[in-house]
Amino acid sequence: MENFIAYNPTKVHFGKDVVGTLGKTVAGLGKRVLLVYGKGSVLRNGSYQDTLDQLDEAGLEITEYGGIKPNPVIEDADAAARLGKEKQVDLVVAVGGGSAIDTAKVIAVCIGEDCKAWDVMKGRVDIKKTLPIIAVLTLAATASEMNSIAVLQNDQEKEKFGYRHPSMFPTHSFMDPTYSCTVPPEHTGYGIVDLIAHALENYFGMGEASLSDRFAEGIILEAMEGGPELMSKLENYDLRAKIMWAASNALNGITASGRASGDFASHAIGHQLSLLYDTPHAASLSITFPAWMKHMKPRIGHRLEKLGTRLFGDPSIENTIKRFEEFFKSMNCPVRLQDIGLDQANWEEIVTLMNKNNCQGKNPENLLNDQDRSAIVDRMLEPN
Amino acid sequence: MENFIAYNPTKVHFGKDVVGTLGKTVAGLGKRVLLVYGKGSVLRNGSYQDTLDQLDEAGLEITEYGGIKPNPVIEDADAAARLGKEKQVDLVVAVGGGSAIDTAKVIAVCIGEDCKAWDVMKGRVDIKKTLPIIAVLTLAATASEMNSIAVLQNDQEKEKFGYRHPSMFPTHSFMDPTYSCTVPPEHTGYGIVDLIAHALENYFGMGEASLSDRFAEGIILEAMEGGPELMSKLENYDLRAKIMWAASNALNGITASGRASGDFASHAIGHQLSLLYDTPHAASLSITFPAWMKHMKPRIGHRLEKLGTRLFGDPSIENTIKRFEEFFKSMNCPVRLQDIGLDQANWEEIVTLMNKNNCQGKNPENLLNDQDRSAIVDRMLEPN
Repeated sequence: MENFIAYNPTKVHFGKDVVGTLGKTVAGLGKRVLLVYGKGSVLRNGSYQDTLDQLDEAGLEITEYGGIKPNPVIEDADAAARLGKEKQVDLVVAVGGGSAIDTAKVIAVCIGEDCKAWDVMKGRVDIKKTLPIIAVLTLAATASEMNSIAVLQNDQEKEKFGYRHPSMFPTHSFMDPTYSCTVPPEHTGYGIVDLIAHALENYFGMGEASLSDRFAEGIILEAMEGGPELMSKLENYDLRAKIMWAASNALNGITASGRASGDFASHAIGHQLSLLYDTPHAASLSITFPAWMKHMKPRIGHRLEKLGTRLFGDPSIENTIKRFEEFFKSMNCPVRLQDIGLDQANWEEIVTLMNKNNCQGKNPENLLNDQDRSAIVDRMLEPN
Repeated sequence: MENFIAYNPTKVHFGKDVVGTLGKTVAGLGKRVLLVYGKGSVLRNGSYQDTLDQLDEAGLEITEYGGIKPNPVIEDADAAARLGKEKQVDLVVAVGGGSAIDTAKVIAVCIGEDCKAWDVMKGRVDIKKTLPIIAVLTLAATASEMNSIAVLQNDQEKEKFGYRHPSMFPTHSFMDPTYSCTVPPEHTGYGIVDLIAHALENYFGMGEASLSDRFAEGIILEAMEGGPELMSKLENYDLRAKIMWAASNALNGITASGRASGDFASHAIGHQLSLLYDTPHAASLSITFPAWMKHMKPRIGHRLEKLGTRLFGDPSIENTIKRFEEFFKSMNCPVRLQDIGLDQANWEEIVTLMNKNNCQGKNPENLLNDQDRSAIVDRMLEPN
């Protein structure tokens, strides 16, 4: 087992009506609140109104910044931070999924340090001061509600990646699965694929970490068991709760203990698709992960054997990859570039951007080079 | 899934030589340190000297309180708190296993609140102020290094139980498995049994919590896989690391999410044996848990079926109980009262103390009454 730090100070309030204590909790942290959210679903599922009511009742001064994009951009973080500084806010409350929460994290740093979002993302800020971040989760997917990671994209530079810093853990996260009961099938499937991808990225990281393996396997089985059931009962609270909690645990650190790093090459590659074609994050992962596994077989075969044995009682590498691919398809997610309207004509620009941004993953034993990247895009274009 | 709070702010520093950063970490929290430890093993395994060197090098003023007993008592917590107050210490550093860390937690509250240990344990103190608690772990077993629980006993009142409060999480825990490489076989086995018992107590708690089940199953499998190997290779770092990390996770909260409560009836019963006969904690559990499961079969049969299926691929309730019993024996732990030199003549005093202290567990669906308690002690005396 590699040396590691395990640290996650976020206080999670999970279950029905937990937002009922948000006002009191936030009032203990400050007076002036910047409320950050996305483009509409939070208005329909009740989470926005419930949060607003709570902040109002607690007598807090509210400044709003809405319209965060599904693939969130640095411009919104900068604009919201400017607004927050002008209003001298004490903390940031995000209502939504990973996009709103990721953006709120960077806003909290930008206000605390009086700096630009891109400098934060590039690790050029020595972060000492961050505003408290409060999350009200409405979508099971990214685990941003329970980790210190933010993923933002810079369209000008054509770069998208994750940045993590211990000051970016939410102080409190309110997770009422009820809000996710109205998530449409498409995004429900995306969330399930996203959480499986997170568990897999750590599974393919560097180092022997037997308990982290067991936790990752448990999370994947939970998603593979609950996912199909949820797709046929979208408004079922218990199934929503099951998937929401699995998603948080898939990237809250418990599958990373004892490893030098996760891998995250599939994430890096997927981000290039989002940059080029605004592909939803999870849709990029359901295409890249099987392609990456197929290409990496000679290097990760022993891990795929263990995974297949544990999950399916079958050590066959081919079968394991196939089972994931079939599962992603059953979640209505694309598994080839053709499934999102691309073809061989796009090969060049995808590979070029992957190379420019040096998509290589983080596991030092399995870093990708130019040839790997080309071969993986070939796999993404294979007939299905 | 029941509503729940998930919160664990302890920063864990895990691995070889992690104590090398302790001095710097502690210096950031105060100037005057109360150093708390047990009866000798920490002097032999190097942890005491390493910690002392770190505190010395960081220029901290050290007050020592040694001699904490394996079944720790409130008298030591009170005496150490008096000493700490006199010396105006800013924080408490515990070196050792659960006994030293549990005691340090209560000391930190007693100094912060200027109160008595028994009042803390009885929940009569409205805790607002606690000194920071730092743990240097030398024994894999209780998970005290990663939770907010302290178990102390009051010999006068003949009471022993656990108390938890969010202010009692260690701020930092330094976990170098190297220190546990010299733990003798007896206490190595105890630690493995203790961690399995913790996972089971939550497994038999109230409420459906499928992911917590999977985590508990993973932890138990980890211990059942690594335990026998470790018993034959006591100085193996990787196996020590595996068991140490499993033990922390068995009671750090991740198996409790989504439940209204764990059960902990077996713990409650076991504590009475420790009170009466100074039975080591884990030895009390290896006797009480099989007896409790046998008696509770009609009420917990469905849980035992799930557990057996998941762990052993066998839903048989009898076989599952038998497998745990055999495993405890293979860890050189007692499974009957006869194994610790007791017999039918002790029945009366054990049952009397269990009834006096109302050992009933915490799962509201399965609370024990007088008849249950008598029947469980009968089971503890059955021929083996």
